[in-house]
Amino acid sequence: MQVTLDNVQDFVRGAAFLGTGGGGDPYIGSLMLKHELRHGRTIDIIDPARLGDDDLIVSCATMGAPTVMMERIPSTAATVRAIERTENLLGRKAAAIAPIEAGGINATLPLAVAARMGRPVVDADGMGRAFPELQMVTYSVYGCSASPVVLTTERGDCMVVEADDNRRCEHLARSLVVTTGGQAQIALYPVLGRTLKEFAVLRTLSLALQIGATLSASRRARQSPVEALMTFFQSAELNRFARCVFTGKVSDVARKTTRGFAVGRICIEHLRADGPPCHIEFQNEFLMATRGGRPLAMVPDLICLLDAENGEPITTEVVRYGHRVQVFAVAVPPVMQTQAALSIFGPRAFGFDLDYIPLKTLANADPTLPPTQG
Amino acid sequence: MQVTLDNVQDFVRGAAFLGTGGGGDPYIGSLMLKHELRHGRTIDIIDPARLGDDDLIVSCATMGAPTVMMERIPSTAATVRAIERTENLLGRKAAAIAPIEAGGINATLPLAVAARMGRPVVDADGMGRAFPELQMVTYSVYGCSASPVVLTTERGDCMVVEADDNRRCEHLARSLVVTTGGQAQIALYPVLGRTLKEFAVLRTLSLALQIGATLSASRRARQSPVEALMTFFQSAELNRFARCVFTGKVSDVARKTTRGFAVGRICIEHLRADGPPCHIEFQNEFLMATRGGRPLAMVPDLICLLDAENGEPITTEVVRYGHRVQVFAVAVPPVMQTQAALSIFGPRAFGFDLDYIPLKTLANADPTLPPTQG
Repeated sequence: MQVTLDNVQDFVRGAAFLGTGGGGDPYIGSLMLKHELRHGRTIDIIDPARLGDDDLIVSCATMGAPTVMMERIPSTAATVRAIERTENLLGRKAAAIAPIEAGGINATLPLAVAARMGRPVVDADGMGRAFPELQMVTYSVYGCSASPVVLTTERGDCMVVEADDNRRCEHLARSLVVTTGGQAQIALYPVLGRTLKEFAVLRTLSLALQIGATLSASRRARQSPVEALMTFFQSAELNRFARCVFTGKVSDVARKTTRGFAVGRICIEHLRADGPPCHIEFQNEFLMATRGGRPLAMVPDLICLLDAENGEPITTEVVRYGHRVQVFAVAVPPVMQTQAALSIFGPRAFGFDLDYIPLKTLANADPTLPPTQG
Repeated sequence: MQVTLDNVQDFVRGAAFLGTGGGGDPYIGSLMLKHELRHGRTIDIIDPARLGDDDLIVSCATMGAPTVMMERIPSTAATVRAIERTENLLGRKAAAIAPIEAGGINATLPLAVAARMGRPVVDADGMGRAFPELQMVTYSVYGCSASPVVLTTERGDCMVVEADDNRRCEHLARSLVVTTGGQAQIALYPVLGRTLKEFAVLRTLSLALQIGATLSASRRARQSPVEALMTFFQSAELNRFARCVFTGKVSDVARKTTRGFAVGRICIEHLRADGPPCHIEFQNEFLMATRGGRPLAMVPDLICLLDAENGEPITTEVVRYGHRVQVFAVAVPPVMQTQAALSIFGPRAFGFDLDYIPLKTLANADPTLPPTQG
């Protein structure tokens, strides 16, 4: 599979959808990819099945608050340096590059980096969505170390963080990110092919491309993007429960950039109907949607804010008063619903005082929503 | 030269004197050395002249606020790991270990580390005193890089910081130190023998031993320790101007542990005479002594607080109300008075709005002090 100038827009839009509000601005992500493509470089995405068991794969990303990424475009060159430094530390070359999460930038940056280095990108990542902290990946759940985490900046700094647990890596790396102005490029979770094939969330880049294509097709056909996405996710092939849990107008956004994150709360009111508004809490990503104190959807299930007109994904750093939006939620695959997974990225990992309730259970219990089938 | 159980107390006391209030508590430093010596290890200090031009020398220290070091004793084992990691990064072994600064801990820790590793310690450091920040060493003044700065903690973390200027290294490393609880072990300024011989402050460990021996001898002879030190420093061999600039009782200490430093201000009042008190500003180390707004002594000259009874050096983290003290100042060698040196560790580098005035000039201008000879 290749990302080209013809499908780059679909890819980036789908990646932003999976970013659930985080993972970076898709416009910037698309510029980064177009820059590589227009310089004649190719973006080759390979299926995980094509990896050798002993191949080294290094993941990369930009780390920091999305609000900072809007103003300081992540440096592809600095990310290449981070990968090369990891190779240097490990004494071997990476056979392929991988994204660590989805998102408008964090699913595109690894493609730009791989194009620049002439390497392929693996169609897989560590979340199948975006999460704000380094330890919140499936590799962590199954015991893989994030170390060495190499951080670089466009002004030439290079930092390496190694710790015996991934939460500690997050803690140490985050302080460096805050010190370097709220953003750094990172290379981390060096894994072998067999590990990636067993523990990563597979085929997330092709999923992003399909989501984007679904949105484009619905626009061309002048159909509801949300209906198209519901049909797509609930197809026999994917079999992921999905639904729109709220529709309305953003009436308030409280957002601050703090400790290296964009954190806050959005209030969305009904356009016509009465009743309590919907609130969404976020930390880089949308984490919890509630209405009248009752949860509508929660991490790790995907909570996506879509423009009500055209289905365009809206990120946490650009959502603003007056936006007409649909709150669209998608269940995560079973690999992300285990107790081990929920201990790392379930609601309690973000400080919410409640246990994870799957999206489908919540939807069935909600009297304002039509009952689900099956 | 060897440090043994017979002279360890003199050595540590002299190192604390040169620490000018910082560089760590001498009691803890002496325990660290005695621990190594009682385990049958030897502490060999070699003269810089014995180094080969191409020998690798790595410096080490504990970095952070002295107030934290009082409660969390620096780990020799973690410091050994930092040195070994540096060797690993550079692909070669260090021929010797060096201190980066003087002080009750920072001149003793490298000896404990070297004993543990079976290596010699070079009789030299990067300051001939203590300074609070990484870039404030003579190596910096003459263009040597602090990178890679390796930071370790006793809980197993390992971090590497590389930047193109040493002030930036300080900035990045300091944020990690704050995150790891106000203290980390560091290995830094890997230099070749020829560089050390040209740019380090030489024979500072033997100087510490001589200072400690001078204090001990004055106690045994029931002589004034301050008189003995004045005679010692102004000897033909050393030829460093030294004098007691104030004697009194500590009437106030304002100290806070912030940004990874102990910073504050001490007020010392005359015991009998009238007139304005003496104020000393500190950031880990004593930086500026003033009286009635007029400077008495300033960085980089050494400002040492001595117990008025027995000449024991008092550090910034233990000085307290009621201490009877003498403020003793010593001129630094010419290598630390150049414009390049003053731009890195002169008064303006610490935020004081005045140019460096040498101790001797200040002493001659002070009507309350007897005129100096020569």
